Amino acid sequence: MAKVCADSICKIELLRALSPEVRDCLLSRARTRDVKRGETLSWQGDRAETLKIVTRGWVKLFRVSEEGHEAVVNTLGHGQSFDEVPALLGGESAVSAEAITDATVLMLNLSDICSCTNARAELSQAVLSAAQIHMNSMTNQIEGLKIKTATQRLGEFLLQQSGEHDGLRSFVLPFGKVVLAGMLGMKPESLSRAFSRLKDVGVCSAGGRVEINDPATLRDWMLQQSIR
Amino acid sequence: MAKVCADSICKIELLRALSPEVRDCLLSRARTRDVKRGETLSWQGDRAETLKIVTRGWVKLFRVSEEGHEAVVNTLGHGQSFDEVPALLGGESAVSAEAITDATVLMLNLSDICSCTNARAELSQAVLSAAQIHMNSMTNQIEGLKIKTATQRLGEFLLQQSGEHDGLRSFVLPFGKVVLAGMLGMKPESLSRAFSRLKDVGVCSAGGRVEINDPATLRDWMLQQSIR
Repeated sequence: MAKVCADSICKIELLRALSPEVRDCLLSRARTRDVKRGETLSWQGDRAETLKIVTRGWVKLFRVSEEGHEAVVNTLGHGQSFDEVPALLGGESAVSAEAITDATVLMLNLSDICSCTNARAELSQAVLSAAQIHMNSMTNQIEGLKIKTATQRLGEFLLQQSGEHDGLRSFVLPFGKVVLAGMLGMKPESLSRAFSRLKDVGVCSAGGRVEINDPATLRDWMLQQSIR
Repeated sequence: MAKVCADSICKIELLRALSPEVRDCLLSRARTRDVKRGETLSWQGDRAETLKIVTRGWVKLFRVSEEGHEAVVNTLGHGQSFDEVPALLGGESAVSAEAITDATVLMLNLSDICSCTNARAELSQAVLSAAQIHMNSMTNQIEGLKIKTATQRLGEFLLQQSGEHDGLRSFVLPFGKVVLAGMLGMKPESLSRAFSRLKDVGVCSAGGRVEINDPATLRDWMLQQSIR
């Protein structure tokens, strides 16, 4: 694993936060796992033995409610991690994880920790930073679910995907519309209606391809929306 | 502050996780703040200088969206803490905090850390545990907002408040219905409709008092609800 650090893996924020010694030591004991779309990586309630970082493709985190319904909690792409805190403290995963495209995941065992000086303190710091990022992202998501309409949530997701620059933007959705609807907290038919509404502000969608005529127009429209 | 540890403060989970030396040292430098209902404790985006623990009354955490709408992110009662990670890492608060009843908050300065052995390591561990609890609670909230109806979310909140035991349960809502509606992600008029619907399963509400005729009946009803 040592030479993977020559490529994009070392640019991942969580790993950049570590000293080269601790990072190389951790990576030398890491495993990578290639999974097919639809394959489950880990289950809610299982002991989280590793911190996991997505290095290719997309993974959804989900929960199944007591009533048997699935809620997509988040979707993670390149460089995004999960199970950090339980991997460090020895707890259980709060969510299940499934590949929603073919994907590769780097699995880091934090308890089998190397003897480098400061490894534990560095990892605590890196995991705390990752926890902070997750909490901010979840707070954004809760804010959106509570006070934004489904169409506003779709508009925000599309602006993020487009990179938020101005001028015509065209891109392919990273995963299917059923997962996207679940991620945004709506049924697939509501997602279709939300896409229809966004046509008026220059958003076209055909198959998995989306074109935003002018992101500035879309942003202005979103700011004018009133509370649902 | 040393003798406060004789009372309920030392039973607070985050403080129990510390050794007596580190806890006493931290508490000896703590400040308490009494606030009136409606008073703001801290602002989103400000540097979080202290970890805060609610020791009396209730506090809401909220965000104001770009469009100017308020989203209640959480409501915290006795023993619940916030701003743990930014207080330790020196970051900004992700939320604003306001007292929704008269309240007392214990403010702990983690950066002005005492010279006890292991203080930093113990605090990191305690803050990581607190972060895990927050993430689990936010994951539950996201799951509820995505796949449960407003009435189901109200039913769950009432069961939590009732202590979930069987037999007639009667209790007073801890804060007003406008905050409760915001917390559950609905408008006040939707909250009234949700209370009306729950009458059929034995939930009566008058003023701030709620009676659940039989929590088991309410739980059964919730399990039978289909996805919204």
